[in-house]
Amino acid sequence: MRILFLGDIVGSPGRNAIAENINKIKQKFRPQIIVANGENAAGGRGITEKILKDLMNLGIHVVTMGNHTWDQKDIYQFIDHFPHLIRPANYPSGTPGKGYTIINFNAHKLAIINLQGRTFLPAIDCPFRKVEEILEEIRKETANILVDFHAEATSEKQAMGWFLDGKVSAVVGTHTHVQTADERILPKGTAYITDVGMVGPYDGILGMKKEEVIEKFITALPQRFEVDKLGRWQLNAVIIDIDLVTGKAKRIERIHLNQEKSIVE
Amino acid sequence: MRILFLGDIVGSPGRNAIAENINKIKQKFRPQIIVANGENAAGGRGITEKILKDLMNLGIHVVTMGNHTWDQKDIYQFIDHFPHLIRPANYPSGTPGKGYTIINFNAHKLAIINLQGRTFLPAIDCPFRKVEEILEEIRKETANILVDFHAEATSEKQAMGWFLDGKVSAVVGTHTHVQTADERILPKGTAYITDVGMVGPYDGILGMKKEEVIEKFITALPQRFEVDKLGRWQLNAVIIDIDLVTGKAKRIERIHLNQEKSIVE
Amino acid sequence: MRILFLGDIVGSPGRNAIAENINKIKQKFRPQIIVANGENAAGGRGITEKILKDLMNLGIHVVTMGNHTWDQKDIYQFIDHFPHLIRPANYPSGTPGKGYTIINFNAHKLAIINLQGRTFLPAIDCPFRKVEEILEEIRKETANILVDFHAEATSEKQAMGWFLDGKVSAVVGTHTHVQTADERILPKGTAYITDVGMVGPYDGILGMKKEEVIEKFITALPQRFEVDKLGRWQLNAVIIDIDLVTGKAKRIERIHLNQEKSIVE
Amino acid sequence: MRILFLGDIVGSPGRNAIAENINKIKQKFRPQIIVANGENAAGGRGITEKILKDLMNLGIHVVTMGNHTWDQKDIYQFIDHFPHLIRPANYPSGTPGKGYTIINFNAHKLAIINLQGRTFLPAIDCPFRKVEEILEEIRKETANILVDFHAEATSEKQAMGWFLDGKVSAVVGTHTHVQTADERILPKGTAYITDVGMVGPYDGILGMKKEEVIEKFITALPQRFEVDKLGRWQLNAVIIDIDLVTGKAKRIERIHLNQEKSIVE
Ligand SMILES: [Fe+2]
Ligand SMILES: [Fe+2]
Ligand SMILES: [Fe+2]
Ligand SMILES: [Fe+2]
Ligand SMILES: [Fe+2]
Ligand SMILES: [Fe+2]
Ligand SMILES: [Fe+2]
Ligand SMILES: [Fe+2]
Repeated sequence: MRILFLGDIVGSPGRNAIAENINKIKQKFRPQIIVANGENAAGGRGITEKILKDLMNLGIHVVTMGNHTWDQKDIYQFIDHFPHLIRPANYPSGTPGKGYTIINFNAHKLAIINLQGRTFLPAIDCPFRKVEEILEEIRKETANILVDFHAEATSEKQAMGWFLDGKVSAVVGTHTHVQTADERILPKGTAYITDVGMVGPYDGILGMKKEEVIEKFITALPQRFEVDKLGRWQLNAVIIDIDLVTGKAKRIERIHLNQEKSIVE
Repeated sequence: MRILFLGDIVGSPGRNAIAENINKIKQKFRPQIIVANGENAAGGRGITEKILKDLMNLGIHVVTMGNHTWDQKDIYQFIDHFPHLIRPANYPSGTPGKGYTIINFNAHKLAIINLQGRTFLPAIDCPFRKVEEILEEIRKETANILVDFHAEATSEKQAMGWFLDGKVSAVVGTHTHVQTADERILPKGTAYITDVGMVGPYDGILGMKKEEVIEKFITALPQRFEVDKLGRWQLNAVIIDIDLVTGKAKRIERIHLNQEKSIVE
Repeated sequence: MRILFLGDIVGSPGRNAIAENINKIKQKFRPQIIVANGENAAGGRGITEKILKDLMNLGIHVVTMGNHTWDQKDIYQFIDHFPHLIRPANYPSGTPGKGYTIINFNAHKLAIINLQGRTFLPAIDCPFRKVEEILEEIRKETANILVDFHAEATSEKQAMGWFLDGKVSAVVGTHTHVQTADERILPKGTAYITDVGMVGPYDGILGMKKEEVIEKFITALPQRFEVDKLGRWQLNAVIIDIDLVTGKAKRIERIHLNQEKSIVE
Repeated sequence: MRILFLGDIVGSPGRNAIAENINKIKQKFRPQIIVANGENAAGGRGITEKILKDLMNLGIHVVTMGNHTWDQKDIYQFIDHFPHLIRPANYPSGTPGKGYTIINFNAHKLAIINLQGRTFLPAIDCPFRKVEEILEEIRKETANILVDFHAEATSEKQAMGWFLDGKVSAVVGTHTHVQTADERILPKGTAYITDVGMVGPYDGILGMKKEEVIEKFITALPQRFEVDKLGRWQLNAVIIDIDLVTGKAKRIERIHLNQEKSIVE
């Protein structure tokens, strides 16, 4: 089973980058399941129902979220209506939405789990204990399991990778918006990358216009950050191949496209 | 001018990885100046005088540091004796050591500046203002300038890259111990990478034994972290080419070596 | 010289509490200079020009600020027009406004300095070094010096108190909105209190409606906080007596008034 | 039922202050149950078995802890041997020790619960949800319930007070080492104080020698903190009266003693 995982989609530049490239990516890599992190899809802050539907119409099967899940107030209206929209599973019990989903492909299943880190991020439930609970529930259904660990600290992300090595098919990090070059198959068969990176502006700072972010660091005064809509785009993703017999990963490959380095048809 | 920059060297596995690979790297890449971040060279915590000398004997010309600069109490004894050992320049005035150095190569000079971020790190002086002050001082001496920005947050690192674009030859990030895949030449000629990654254990967590780090995340109880000395090694670095006429970067290339993927002579 | 210092004024309940009580306080305590922290005066978030004028019309001579200084966008329009409106002095150079002021009373002067801590607060310049610089400037003008140290951590606040002991007349803390019971004259003559507390709602959480704050802690979901306008009020302050010959403090006394415990005329 | 609650005991100065004053306090206030926070009893860092026994021999019935619980490695040997030594209940399941205890006095019972905050402190389980679970268990046994909420942020502490108002007899805060002046009976009958303060050095910073702490803030260099053993002592506590019919609090009164302001026999 081949999965394409797209990093945090940032605003309209991110959505446009997907619209323009998804067919070329599909043709080149032939993914069977497409998963994307959508926590910044609406102007950098959360996601709307319309944007979610647009992403799904582009062929994205599952959308994961993160600390920006709740930025658009509408989220509470639709989060429970989409079986394949998930938010970090370790928000406390009673939180709207759900933390994992299982998708069918031919006769096969893939479980996707979303988790959020706690280092340099708000205190929620323990992602390590939560994922163990979820694995208990889904292991009987499928061994094909992808985890999107939305977290800041490289230590916490690597810890999750090693913690889940041999228990899931893949652990991919999101949230920092910068793709890391440490993709690998861990010794017990789990594909791992600290961060997939983002899909959106190439010339901003994490996708936002750079001037205000620099100003914020220099002056410590409040700034209004906006998605950089004028610059070039980039698209960061990974391709993961899972052995359907064992649920182990056979391959993880990084994809980085940008305006100057796109796929030639 | 060609520079080799080696990411945070972690403990004896890191030092050994350099000893074993440095000649092969020199032969293959022919760097003229070698710079390395040494903040974790002594058992993961700071650096000793002996280790510093050993690194310099291996051909490293300049050693930069970071938030772990002060972990070995001896540092105060020798930090002022080595012209090419630098610590983050934005520690407050009066701090032992210095924040930048200028090294000569043939008729040319290269300035190396070390800075530390403040997001998720202790409050010290502003790295953006500090680097402006330093540039004021050194600009008359040379346009070849390399900045090691030791910082946690991708936002702060990208902000520094864009802030210095066109003002220095290169901004390379350190501290997260994970190499990022976003190396590029910014529009005004500055080479940039969010993090060079580390030199040391390949099978630990940021270079430390993984069991204790995972335990810490799961139990919240204190753990004693130690360098993982049993696993495989990795070496992360970048090669940067600077145009000696303009001081601008012409090329930045990532290097990732590990036990299975080393340079064949 | 007798000073009345009023803690963080929160919204209309805080302003009303001052309007209703200030005359009784003046009659009872006979303060010569009144200083108040106004960082939350406008609906809990910053201050407006109208509110500033209203406070000054109530007899407040000097208004200090804190991390909420910039919450109202208008602040940039008027911050430089009021000689006795000050914001934390250790914001970086170039920040609008000023960090200290000197006020005359009869033939005497009182300098008021505003500083902001860095522990659990944004990284700005060092408050310890900044206050030394300011003392250098003002010492020739007056020995009567009051410092409002707007900070979170008790360690940083006590450190400032001891650091300035004998150098200023008083160090009073603000920001936590809870009055501490540790007022004292330090050995070298500086009056000290870790936090003066707030002026505003008595039945909220730091002045805000409690339901949303509790919800935030339990659910980790975003909440909109509003000033609690329905509950009872409280007024926290300190009275400080300064010896005009030496500039040292002779007395620091806490004031806590609330709807059930107000001053009987 | 009358309870004496003593704030964080810091090192030998704290233990000595208790030894010297406890009989005078008992005579004056006649407490029936004495509870103390002991997280800093051993040189500022955790507690040893010997010190725990010494404290109990002085008449302390129950010792609560906090984020320093684990500082002394021996704690794991004895934490499960003392029924009235408790650590924050919201450490994850499987943590050594226990989070609450029930003590008998004549025909009556008092439950003491220890919780730890998460704002500016390590991520552990949610203290709000945890205390609800515990209340479920103990409500049938007794309505007399004291909570030691060991936390940094005033917002989180006030939120806990209001959250538990009417559900427990008292919520007392610890950890900041500074006594607050906001003791009160909340509307539904729960006694509340944001922080009880500490028992130990009077002239240090949170009980530690002030020079190193100030140095740390000014230089950002590592410092070794030690309990200030030379200065004067202070003792901060509260007296709480519980109505045995309803379990509600009738009174909360602050106690602050120091070398110059001690109880005269
Ligand atoms: Fe994101
Ligand atoms: Fe995120
Ligand atoms: Fe490092
Ligand atoms: Fe570091
Ligand atoms: Fe405030
Ligand atoms: Fe504040
Ligand atoms: Fe403590
Ligand atoms: Fe504590």
